[in-house]
Amino acid sequence: MRDVAVIGVGITKWGEIWKQSLRDVYVETALLALQDAGVDKVDSMYVGSMAPGLFVGQEHIGALLADYLGQKNIPAARVESACASGGLAVRLGYMEVASGMSDVVLVSGVEKMTDVGGDEATFALGTAADQEYEGYHGLTFPGLYALIARAHMEKYGTTREQLAMVAVKNHRNGSMNPNAQFPFEITVEQVIDSVKVSDPLNILDCSPITDGAAAAILVPADRAREMNKPVIRIIGSGHASDSFALAQRKDITWLEATYLAGQRAYQMAGKKPEDLDLLEVHDCFTIAEICVTEALGVVEKGKGGAAVEAGETALEGRIPVNTSGGLKSKGHPVGATGVGQVVEVVKQLRGEAGGRQVKDPRVAMTQNMGGSGASTVCHIFERE
Amino acid sequence: MRDVAVIGVGITKWGEIWKQSLRDVYVETALLALQDAGVDKVDSMYVGSMAPGLFVGQEHIGALLADYLGQKNIPAARVESACASGGLAVRLGYMEVASGMSDVVLVSGVEKMTDVGGDEATFALGTAADQEYEGYHGLTFPGLYALIARAHMEKYGTTREQLAMVAVKNHRNGSMNPNAQFPFEITVEQVIDSVKVSDPLNILDCSPITDGAAAAILVPADRAREMNKPVIRIIGSGHASDSFALAQRKDITWLEATYLAGQRAYQMAGKKPEDLDLLEVHDCFTIAEICVTEALGVVEKGKGGAAVEAGETALEGRIPVNTSGGLKSKGHPVGATGVGQVVEVVKQLRGEAGGRQVKDPRVAMTQNMGGSGASTVCHIFERE
Repeated sequence: MRDVAVIGVGITKWGEIWKQSLRDVYVETALLALQDAGVDKVDSMYVGSMAPGLFVGQEHIGALLADYLGQKNIPAARVESACASGGLAVRLGYMEVASGMSDVVLVSGVEKMTDVGGDEATFALGTAADQEYEGYHGLTFPGLYALIARAHMEKYGTTREQLAMVAVKNHRNGSMNPNAQFPFEITVEQVIDSVKVSDPLNILDCSPITDGAAAAILVPADRAREMNKPVIRIIGSGHASDSFALAQRKDITWLEATYLAGQRAYQMAGKKPEDLDLLEVHDCFTIAEICVTEALGVVEKGKGGAAVEAGETALEGRIPVNTSGGLKSKGHPVGATGVGQVVEVVKQLRGEAGGRQVKDPRVAMTQNMGGSGASTVCHIFERE
Repeated sequence: MRDVAVIGVGITKWGEIWKQSLRDVYVETALLALQDAGVDKVDSMYVGSMAPGLFVGQEHIGALLADYLGQKNIPAARVESACASGGLAVRLGYMEVASGMSDVVLVSGVEKMTDVGGDEATFALGTAADQEYEGYHGLTFPGLYALIARAHMEKYGTTREQLAMVAVKNHRNGSMNPNAQFPFEITVEQVIDSVKVSDPLNILDCSPITDGAAAAILVPADRAREMNKPVIRIIGSGHASDSFALAQRKDITWLEATYLAGQRAYQMAGKKPEDLDLLEVHDCFTIAEICVTEALGVVEKGKGGAAVEAGETALEGRIPVNTSGGLKSKGHPVGATGVGQVVEVVKQLRGEAGGRQVKDPRVAMTQNMGGSGASTVCHIFERE
């Protein structure tokens, strides 16, 4: 397989975008990635999107968006793994370039979530859980993650304040990201006093409903070198699944799919958690970031909450996590999130992250998760 | 890239399956493919499904079905290109094995369409068209294909009877397929006298609403030889898109995405239309089969109707098309259809097609199409 590099990334401001439709949001973003890469034609494209049928009444968006992007006639695939759809698009694009099938591949994600009301959005998001054994009995995602949070608190002594500190850290990072949906700081007290969603999770523990897209251009690494582009190689790709319903797992505080996807990416890259200079992870709820950092081995099992409290995952800490602001502050247009993570680590590895720049990073990881952790896609990137 | 072979296929009877849920239909079918291949564990899987969110309120079915199939922890991806979702799953599984990423990959498709009412099913299917420029103005798929049919009749003199003969031929083939939804013969008169859907298309010109799944196991060809399995190699894979809305195309009787996907598959395989011994194509409406055979070069442009009338595409004809019964008689569980086509050509190339067996075929093609032709995936298979 060939070495693969990211030579262009694009992202626009995420939030409630009422003046653009899904196709407009997408095209604006993808054009930025093409411009950044310095290419005007791609061989193939992948679009990660969780539920455009439920959110905007439109499926078949691979072909639709290829057409509206001016790339008609190319192979164009939409891929879905709930909130890990974007990560999946990156993985399949990686595979297509690595295999030699194509040379220039656009990987992207998009979701337009605010065109429906709250009940419809909650239903659409709920289709990522096991509808027969969870959804139809009234369990929503805040409920599922609240169960995980409560179990983590009981088992490891994780505190309410530590959960809040994840949101506080990510909002601080996001306050330096002009594309974030909520680019401002919050306090532990604000999180704890915010409205209850599902005990122990309050509204400020939850990622928001967001419209947005993200895109990246992949090419063989040799070609990136010829183009005199900064060479950010994808050196590891891991994808895994787990028991779908939460009740089927032995230990609901342990994200096995994240562990396995991480291990597969580490092994392929020949790297260990200690080699990472920063990570973008799937903090759909504050507890999720704690469990993810444990499953990826960047903090000890059960110590995710304590690590946040000690500042280990802060921008200036031992291992910065979610420098972009994460899903919490940057926003969570579900299908776009995994590609948005790639945009952030590429900017960091290029030294283009502005006020939130980590000092001279070389190796970074992305972790993108579907449902209550039933699917996960991880990638490791290295700057040459 | 490595040579890839299909070593197992599975399909169950398609139709209105009210006693099984999506996951049950899927698992029963996938187990048949595993059994046929003689393997009990796969490295990875792809599921083509068009709109499980709209049809059964469940997205994220890659991870769900991996779990229910007893394959937990593997990478499991759902892919979508409307009614070409199954073909897309085959293509991505092919790429994964060819690239060396994985050795044993399950490619599959599933759709459960009869759990909703007719209006909801029509809406769900309509999401494959351009909702902003077609769907919201009242245009449904029978309407889109009726426009194509009328234009073909005006431009090439294709007759109402020739359209009907496509359905008659496919029902005759399907009458010999025990897994077909409608395994019985019909007459030209019955088609012409059946209820009007969208002039000139009647109900017997249209493929039905269907529940069903199909599955195949891909491995490196070397491994198939070691296992003493019949080696059916995938020698060509083509995927293309076109202008999304029908009104944007220069000539609505010409399926450019099918032409391009076909050309790409022919080129990769080093084959020409004359080398094919049989085809399974996407006859979602009778007119579609006529346009597809023209775009793939197996009949002359404009002569698709005349070719059916002359018996060229019949089971005993020059180039048999849709020996399985096609979407019309076998049924059209949209996400499963592209994989169902692969099941049929593998059975034919192995000589296991029973009463509908073509004499000693060596090379076969599948063509799977999304929307009104905005996406198409083609594969060419060869028996060693």
